[in-house]
Amino acid sequence: MMRLFRHALLLCLFCSATPAFAGDAIIGGDTGYRLWLKYDALPEIQRRNYLKSIKSWYVAGNSDTHKVIRTELEAALPSLLASDIKEHTQLRKQQLVVLTRDQIAASETELLTTLNNLGDEGYVLRQGRYQGRSVMLVAANTPVAALYGTYALLREMQTGTPLNGLATHSTPALQLRVLNHWDDLDRHVERGFAGESLWDWHKLPVYEYQRYHDYARANASIGINGTVLNNVNADPLILSPLYLEKVEALADTFRPYGLRVYLSVKFNSPQSLGGLDTADPFDPRVEAWWKDKVADIYQRIPDFGGFLVKANSEGQPGPGDYGRSHADGANMLARVLAPHNGVVMWRAFVYANEKNEERSKQAYSEFTPLDGKFEPNVLVQVKNGPIDFQPREPFSPLFGAMPNTPLMMEFQITMEYLGFSTHWVYLGTLFEEVLDADTYIKGPGSTVAKVIDGQLHDYPITGMAGVANIGTDPNWTGHPILQSNWFAYGRFAWDPTLSAESIAQNWTRMSLTREPAAVDEIVDMMMQSRETTVSYMTPLGLHHIMGADHHYGPAPWVDFLGRDDWNSVYYHRADTDGIGFDRSPSGVDAVSQYASPLREELSKPETTPEPLLLWFHHLPWDYTLADGRTLWDALVQHYYQGADDVAEMTQRWAALKGQISPLIHKQVSMSLQIQLNEARWWRDACVLYFQQYSGMPLPKGLAAPQADLDTLKQKQFPHAPGQG
Amino acid sequence: MMRLFRHALLLCLFCSATPAFAGDAIIGGDTGYRLWLKYDALPEIQRRNYLKSIKSWYVAGNSDTHKVIRTELEAALPSLLASDIKEHTQLRKQQLVVLTRDQIAASETELLTTLNNLGDEGYVLRQGRYQGRSVMLVAANTPVAALYGTYALLREMQTGTPLNGLATHSTPALQLRVLNHWDDLDRHVERGFAGESLWDWHKLPVYEYQRYHDYARANASIGINGTVLNNVNADPLILSPLYLEKVEALADTFRPYGLRVYLSVKFNSPQSLGGLDTADPFDPRVEAWWKDKVADIYQRIPDFGGFLVKANSEGQPGPGDYGRSHADGANMLARVLAPHNGVVMWRAFVYANEKNEERSKQAYSEFTPLDGKFEPNVLVQVKNGPIDFQPREPFSPLFGAMPNTPLMMEFQITMEYLGFSTHWVYLGTLFEEVLDADTYIKGPGSTVAKVIDGQLHDYPITGMAGVANIGTDPNWTGHPILQSNWFAYGRFAWDPTLSAESIAQNWTRMSLTREPAAVDEIVDMMMQSRETTVSYMTPLGLHHIMGADHHYGPAPWVDFLGRDDWNSVYYHRADTDGIGFDRSPSGVDAVSQYASPLREELSKPETTPEPLLLWFHHLPWDYTLADGRTLWDALVQHYYQGADDVAEMTQRWAALKGQISPLIHKQVSMSLQIQLNEARWWRDACVLYFQQYSGMPLPKGLAAPQADLDTLKQKQFPHAPGQG
Repeated sequence: MMRLFRHALLLCLFCSATPAFAGDAIIGGDTGYRLWLKYDALPEIQRRNYLKSIKSWYVAGNSDTHKVIRTELEAALPSLLASDIKEHTQLRKQQLVVLTRDQIAASETELLTTLNNLGDEGYVLRQGRYQGRSVMLVAANTPVAALYGTYALLREMQTGTPLNGLATHSTPALQLRVLNHWDDLDRHVERGFAGESLWDWHKLPVYEYQRYHDYARANASIGINGTVLNNVNADPLILSPLYLEKVEALADTFRPYGLRVYLSVKFNSPQSLGGLDTADPFDPRVEAWWKDKVADIYQRIPDFGGFLVKANSEGQPGPGDYGRSHADGANMLARVLAPHNGVVMWRAFVYANEKNEERSKQAYSEFTPLDGKFEPNVLVQVKNGPIDFQPREPFSPLFGAMPNTPLMMEFQITMEYLGFSTHWVYLGTLFEEVLDADTYIKGPGSTVAKVIDGQLHDYPITGMAGVANIGTDPNWTGHPILQSNWFAYGRFAWDPTLSAESIAQNWTRMSLTREPAAVDEIVDMMMQSRETTVSYMTPLGLHHIMGADHHYGPAPWVDFLGRDDWNSVYYHRADTDGIGFDRSPSGVDAVSQYASPLREELSKPETTPEPLLLWFHHLPWDYTLADGRTLWDALVQHYYQGADDVAEMTQRWAALKGQISPLIHKQVSMSLQIQLNEARWWRDACVLYFQQYSGMPLPKGLAAPQADLDTLKQKQFPHAPGQG
Repeated sequence: MMRLFRHALLLCLFCSATPAFAGDAIIGGDTGYRLWLKYDALPEIQRRNYLKSIKSWYVAGNSDTHKVIRTELEAALPSLLASDIKEHTQLRKQQLVVLTRDQIAASETELLTTLNNLGDEGYVLRQGRYQGRSVMLVAANTPVAALYGTYALLREMQTGTPLNGLATHSTPALQLRVLNHWDDLDRHVERGFAGESLWDWHKLPVYEYQRYHDYARANASIGINGTVLNNVNADPLILSPLYLEKVEALADTFRPYGLRVYLSVKFNSPQSLGGLDTADPFDPRVEAWWKDKVADIYQRIPDFGGFLVKANSEGQPGPGDYGRSHADGANMLARVLAPHNGVVMWRAFVYANEKNEERSKQAYSEFTPLDGKFEPNVLVQVKNGPIDFQPREPFSPLFGAMPNTPLMMEFQITMEYLGFSTHWVYLGTLFEEVLDADTYIKGPGSTVAKVIDGQLHDYPITGMAGVANIGTDPNWTGHPILQSNWFAYGRFAWDPTLSAESIAQNWTRMSLTREPAAVDEIVDMMMQSRETTVSYMTPLGLHHIMGADHHYGPAPWVDFLGRDDWNSVYYHRADTDGIGFDRSPSGVDAVSQYASPLREELSKPETTPEPLLLWFHHLPWDYTLADGRTLWDALVQHYYQGADDVAEMTQRWAALKGQISPLIHKQVSMSLQIQLNEARWWRDACVLYFQQYSGMPLPKGLAAPQADLDTLKQKQFPHAPGQG
């Protein structure tokens, strides 16, 4: 491959605008920047097949979005097919044809009927006759949907689907498919581990990085249609004219890609920015201030999406400061946004120490009484679990519990609690686990997916949010494999019924290799990776025992933070009697927030799924698991197995050398080395710490940790990235 | 060119490891990442000439540095010559031959004699017979010098020098050619405007970015042989084992490129890190602590360069805290470094409000009494001017005034006071102006260059430091043209007698275009660019009237900062009588720090160079300049002319479209648009502000600013990048 590469490099260096970086060229050139849109030439047999049905391409229409479609096909087709196939200005046979509804011949009644049910974002892919010619057709009702169809077809080609007789159509299951950027205006990214924010606020509105386009392309290619540009811990300045002008510039860049811009807002902006003496949602001056502000925004950005609000949570101001409810606050904003078709995404991530209620229960207690009290353009955005993006949590009991309020899923793509950007953790399996979880709210099969896509409660709006893992790192996500989590998020937001494995297969073929054996090996590693990390971090339902503040590394000993529920000891409750959080009826009774029969199932250790055992129960160290092991032995074996699995991953990856672009392979190898070091660190810290309480020996055959607990406790990381 | 490019892209996309970024490919691919090492194919005539004398290449030796030489030739030659020329394992005729002394045949007496005078870094380039064969020879005493020679030869080829009969040799004029990175451990870069720090401290020591190699390559290619990794406002943690392990990893990466690592240290580290109750340089425990720390560093990094120290300056701790002198502090560190051949670079940038002495005079007053009192391995690092990296300053009077103390030049490559990374300012002319300035210290011709290179005072060590303008921006410096300042700094550090124009020509040919007309146009714009910026920012010797703290934009009205000499009004002294700082004998008498006849020349407005007039004199608004204009008219005309010149630059650059890689051309165009907006902002703010005091009308023919002074005064930039 290297010889081939050098050969090609040689050829392409003959021209003056070589695409090669000398620095990269030396080692292979492929940093991972191209994500899953590499368009490297397909295997020859496949190319020949495709060239039979695609000898040229034709795009009808001239909108900015059509220009994007042209640019993409111009980059993709000659490269994928290793053939200089060109655009034609009219319809011909054996052509890739992209049509929007207004361009479709009235005589194509069947096609038009199909389109009637596809809405503004759905598309048709159909290989067959159109106007008497055999073509590969991409058809849709709108230019953006045609762009989605174009990317869908390119995905089929990149993953080797035969085009002969291809006949499919697709519409997104969720309306709002949004990335949340926790990006500050100084380019720091809260919980960001892949460089700094993509948004160079200082140089905006004039300076437009190519990367802004490539970001929008990548999102469009997986159907993401919205982006919240700034941190939910919002700086009120984002609503100042100085910054709105910059936001407008980004919105203009993103528009042709179907990507709408949203903003996080600080609830007290009328005070901190507007100079009013209050932000009380019931004060007419406050609503008037927001009304004017929103009018100004829509003046600049006619398709502005709306606001994301973190209120009365972790010190953020909110309606509660004035004795008003979350609904009161959300509805005031909703009323001023409604005339412009904007929405409010109101976060349910709230908890207060003052309340004498266990943290995992608070969101449910606070929001369920408000069900049905929100304006129709409000979505309540709920994190997947009741605590905070842990390696494993049960689904949030809010899902299913608010039939009259659209609930929006909030996943975290960035790995705040999962090893930052140096641990190989494919999140597809986590997303799948949550979406397929059964709430039983309307009997068996009432999955979380059916809650958020509106099937169960007929929501007027639906959506999914993903906290982005993207930054200025050359490979976007700091770790090439973690690109798959951005990809998987987008695919699940489009279709929650997809399988994590099929998504992993497509991503791997598009991003890393098309060698079937290598694909299988990588997909297998991806599918196991999250369980491996759960094992060496938080097995058996343990949670929130990471380092204080930065959440880097193990710290089950943390007991000094200002609030009980910020401390590790609050969550694992290890003592000489045992370990785990009793959330059963005999404890804080969090299980009562779930529907029957799940509630009963989770109430008893015997019927609680082992992976969640210590989430719901405090059990003696010698408690016997189904397989006969004691809890202590199983816990320790999980930690050791997790670390051993990472060691095995490093070997399996090393064996793939030569089948992956050298620079991408090297990046993953280095990250795996860090992951291995840290997995062993997790194992040793947790085993040694918990052993103080269990007082029990390690299971036979396991070598005692060499590390010293006091030394591990003293580790400090004042400059760990991503701090909030 | 685009057609050519697409053609080449097509070809190189046939292989699986294409060097193209899809995102970039769409618009041309050349982000500027490759700097001046692009190696695009040379014009055909030139290629044919070179191919006559270079049909293959041969490198004798197998050190890590030799591997770098091989990698570079393997990337450069096939590309420059558009020919698949290969390495041979033995000497042949018509070969590019790279030899280090131990590989040179004893019979080559003349060559060996030449090498005797070239030291460890000098090289010979000689086209002619070697061992009876006609070859293009690169010869040197050490592998790193051979690498320098290799880059020198590649530079000659990139800029079109005929190789026939080429016979030249070169040695650096200065020993320490060092970049200073003001990079914090959280990746924030103080006064950095090109993204964040290249050093990903969190992922070190394991994770090694390709960019670390490309950074070292770029430095080696211009002879930079040292890098201070961290901010002079140093975090003591840099000396902790956790971070020294990371520093060691970077040193290992940089070593083959001849790039030695240095660290900035906080003087009170024995307290803040070591837990002692003092950092008094006279306390034996303190020296012992440093001795052990230094031993640990050299254990890890045998070729560690030494320490850079900012002490008793802007709140930094230092020997003065214990009543000791700068020499006392520097010498203590020098003593512990000496056994390891390390040096101390002690900054002369000191000023204290308490002292009742004008700021520009303080460094001289504090350091000249210490002349001769420093250990031989100490260099005093002096900023080029007496204040702080202004668009124009006179040279620091310290140059020439310390015959018995090696003075090291500190230039600022990053543009703290010159518009950040969005103003096109080629600094070659600034460097040249300073280096060629005559101190008269030993009569006419006693230039600053001859002071720092040791010619005048026979210094035992010599050096130059440049505060880096490099970050994670895809183009490294945030603005493609500003790459030339990194290049020019390195070239001047190697040879201070070079001309700014020849450096600009070489850089342009290597980085942007080889079209003679385009080269001339760009070089002409580069040569005028700094004067243009001086005109719209600080004409006629004005200085330090930038925005408070961040130094972004104009703020001549600043009068509220904690120290007199942080405020704009302290520096411009505008009042109804006139403007300017009287540093003549009738004023603070700063001129007395310069040698005669310069001292006398600067004492009188009539004999003071007009560009420095208001630096040294407070003059009435109607003061008459040599050309008959009033001071007020000239001042205003400078501001207007500067802004008009930027408008002209934007048009001249636009006319070059099609002759420059599209993405580079676009980046410069956008930056020029920002520069134009800001040049007009500067013009309006300063003219309106000063007019309050002059009370005089604008010169005939000039349209009054449309802006309103109060509005301009109210502009706030809380998130301006690079804040200290």
